[in-house]
Amino acid sequence: MSRRIITLTTDFGTSSPYVAAMKGVMLSINPEALLVDITHDVPPQDIRRGALVLEEICPHYPTEAIHVAVVDPGVGTKRELIFAEISGRTYLAPDNGLLSRLALRAQPSRIVALTDSSFWRKQVSATFHGRDILAPVAAHLSKGLPPERLGEPRERLVALDWPECEVMPQKISGEVTSVDSFGNLITNITAEQLKGVPTGEELSVRCGEHETAGLFRTYGDQPEMTLIALVGSSGKLELAIVGESAAAMLGEGVGAPVTLKW
Amino acid sequence: MSRRIITLTTDFGTSSPYVAAMKGVMLSINPEALLVDITHDVPPQDIRRGALVLEEICPHYPTEAIHVAVVDPGVGTKRELIFAEISGRTYLAPDNGLLSRLALRAQPSRIVALTDSSFWRKQVSATFHGRDILAPVAAHLSKGLPPERLGEPRERLVALDWPECEVMPQKISGEVTSVDSFGNLITNITAEQLKGVPTGEELSVRCGEHETAGLFRTYGDQPEMTLIALVGSSGKLELAIVGESAAAMLGEGVGAPVTLKW
Amino acid sequence: MSRRIITLTTDFGTSSPYVAAMKGVMLSINPEALLVDITHDVPPQDIRRGALVLEEICPHYPTEAIHVAVVDPGVGTKRELIFAEISGRTYLAPDNGLLSRLALRAQPSRIVALTDSSFWRKQVSATFHGRDILAPVAAHLSKGLPPERLGEPRERLVALDWPECEVMPQKISGEVTSVDSFGNLITNITAEQLKGVPTGEELSVRCGEHETAGLFRTYGDQPEMTLIALVGSSGKLELAIVGESAAAMLGEGVGAPVTLKW
Repeated sequence: MSRRIITLTTDFGTSSPYVAAMKGVMLSINPEALLVDITHDVPPQDIRRGALVLEEICPHYPTEAIHVAVVDPGVGTKRELIFAEISGRTYLAPDNGLLSRLALRAQPSRIVALTDSSFWRKQVSATFHGRDILAPVAAHLSKGLPPERLGEPRERLVALDWPECEVMPQKISGEVTSVDSFGNLITNITAEQLKGVPTGEELSVRCGEHETAGLFRTYGDQPEMTLIALVGSSGKLELAIVGESAAAMLGEGVGAPVTLKW
Repeated sequence: MSRRIITLTTDFGTSSPYVAAMKGVMLSINPEALLVDITHDVPPQDIRRGALVLEEICPHYPTEAIHVAVVDPGVGTKRELIFAEISGRTYLAPDNGLLSRLALRAQPSRIVALTDSSFWRKQVSATFHGRDILAPVAAHLSKGLPPERLGEPRERLVALDWPECEVMPQKISGEVTSVDSFGNLITNITAEQLKGVPTGEELSVRCGEHETAGLFRTYGDQPEMTLIALVGSSGKLELAIVGESAAAMLGEGVGAPVTLKW
Repeated sequence: MSRRIITLTTDFGTSSPYVAAMKGVMLSINPEALLVDITHDVPPQDIRRGALVLEEICPHYPTEAIHVAVVDPGVGTKRELIFAEISGRTYLAPDNGLLSRLALRAQPSRIVALTDSSFWRKQVSATFHGRDILAPVAAHLSKGLPPERLGEPRERLVALDWPECEVMPQKISGEVTSVDSFGNLITNITAEQLKGVPTGEELSVRCGEHETAGLFRTYGDQPEMTLIALVGSSGKLELAIVGESAAAMLGEGVGAPVTLKW
């Protein structure tokens, strides 16, 4: 049990040694913990992007894993740090909306505010609670500390408004919610919402000023430089240019409107 | 045996959370696996660069390690995913030339196409076989699954044409094959090919328009800002500018011709 | 004991596979070693930056950890590679000043030059001693090799001159020593030196041409886009612009003068 996985998702930047400070704190408390980086390149202070990453990646991990997330523009202010159990998985994060995508899928079964300083570092800075509170708390949890010891129970998490797709009889309107490292434009339109939508030439897919027709199965189904729409590996509609970066070539990014008509 | 090393080499970008999705899948199957990143910054879809990285780095690992490589522009098309045993080491990759440098050194002793879906994720996307096929297969192998269970045997791997050096009586012609993070220009001319070549002033080394004389042992042997040629740590001739990036200062990169005359 | 932590701090670049070569060498000698990356994005050959990172991060680790650092412009020349014990912690590095910040805090209790090649790779390149000497030596140490076996004792480490703050009756002059990934400008003025300095409006903080007043506790204490001064998580004065990069917006960086007056 003490070799529990602890994952880390932050906006510190991969080049930053701050992540290694958190790892040192955790390994000092539980040398058996298995630390795994999810990403440290959430854009600085971009809570929404962090929330989407957690939603997409954490479900691939064993349920015993502890997921620590730090995108924390309000560090040191009144915002709380929380423990949350959602869909049988354990999260530690600032309560600023970072868990709000996960909480859309399922109501948290337990929320505890990290108010008991017994499990924190002795000296707590005002600007690095990731190292001084979340890291030691995660390490103690990984050694079997019961979550109720961490502080006071809470009823609900901070929620954010998330743009929803509009699904109409012959039209779906959504938007680009992230861009991956290949430059693919990933939308908030899900495979589920696409059920019954035609996949052939009669389907028009627009992103900003750009347009393509039909849905494809994978990138290699069309020649290089072709703009295509497909359902990507996270079950969302994405726009890609075969062999190139769609983000760079189309000049589109997060927030760009995407419309399907047929 | 179950604490077997699994290495990962991809073009996902270090900032990408896709790698962490693969790690989650592997740790869900074998929580004892020891995951090591080789690099995730192979330039997008650059199979040749990936092949050179695997050739250079994997031989430093214990032979029991399982090396997973994902540079896969043809994901979801007819290209196969394969298990290959080369020089006593184990590789999992798309069969698109990614193992073709390793296979130049030694004929694979076993090749198996990953055709048996029993060891895949239940839901396989068309665009992320790294997560859905290679990751679970690697994890099962790390727990002792015999490779012949993975699918059908194959006779040979996809090969790529690799530019060869031309070795003449008083001349060697090669080219730059990669640029490291210091901006050193690494060529395909090997230490072995340099045996008998004079190392003093009588040796002229040209890269594009730029020229230097002689071979040095290490960077600090000459003053800052000097262009020098030396045999680098991977046993290849490289061009360096002491204390600076040769790539940036010379404006040269992969494919630049390199000629030695004496 | 054989599951000892080995940390790695280099200037190879996170994208570089050179780090993975070192890891392969270490795991071949001690498969139980626990390898942790501190950072690989020390700017190329920037010994001072490397020294500051080691000083800030290594104390967060268990004392048994072995800290390997490679920022080594003089690789292959006369500079020595050394083992050093400082404040009860173990370091392996080139003796070029990389440990000089740590050695300012406490005299090394033991220094050994790595002169015995028994614990090196059989073939040692002239340009990659990180892989060929430091990595195998670290792995052997992690298995319990007594440090005196590594080579000849030494009396002192190479020291560097470090810019000191000037503390006057109503004025402190220091400078920016690093910039973190959020663009915060971190100085060499310590919390200790700030004891007794007023924190209200009567305190003027200048960085280059830019000025602000007072000290704040954390970023969220002021509105977005405000330039503030505060004591950051490493106990140093830093300048930040709330929600933005101070480095980018002010055009300031390492070496910029910082003056406090009251």
